[in-house]
Amino acid sequence: MRSISLRIDLTDDGRIGPGKVELLEQIATHGSISAAARQMGMSYRQAWLLIEDINRLFRKPVVTARKGGRHGGGAELTPVGLTIVARYRAIERAADAAAAPHIAALREEIEDG
Amino acid sequence: MRSISLRIDLTDDGRIGPGKVELLEQIATHGSISAAARQMGMSYRQAWLLIEDINRLFRKPVVTARKGGRHGGGAELTPVGLTIVARYRAIERAADAAAAPHIAALREEIEDG
Repeated sequence: MRSISLRIDLTDDGRIGPGKVELLEQIATHGSISAAARQMGMSYRQAWLLIEDINRLFRKPVVTARKGGRHGGGAELTPVGLTIVARYRAIERAADAAAAPHIAALREEIEDG
Repeated sequence: MRSISLRIDLTDDGRIGPGKVELLEQIATHGSISAAARQMGMSYRQAWLLIEDINRLFRKPVVTARKGGRHGGGAELTPVGLTIVARYRAIERAADAAAAPHIAALREEIEDG
């Protein structure tokens, strides 16, 4: 289990957090918005509202129709979608590393309690 | 405005985040739970429930009655309360520093949009 959850405020009312980033990753993995939504236990509509939210924030699409392949209706991340995921995960890895000794010390307080 | 909000999961169902940490800081600043609650726009009861939550997690009090002084009913942080605040803020500073270049790059994507 990851110990840290990060919310990043990019503008006054525009933010990304673990839910949106996982949704983008699931879309990249499954090549489909509906499969990603199902995987996360949310409705297609909920997933689409989250995507719209990110699209509005970045003012360009983060998900696009997948070209080619035998299955119609697939989806994939755009370059900006890929960038969001990569940068968020990089921040998270750095924060995890920086936090590790502090979290170990706090857990020791709990166990000594 | 801080760009990052951190939630730290210390046990399966025990976590600390910006709200609890700010409450502890406000108690340290004002020497009073009710003044801290007022400052944060919450009721005394809400503040007390948050404190109970942290007490339960650490299995010892994080806030104690303040000794001495002319005003009765004051409160101050215990050593474990002070440790929680210090370590949370240290994690946050490290995460902020690590995140800064990534956040700048994401904001540039937004401005280029």
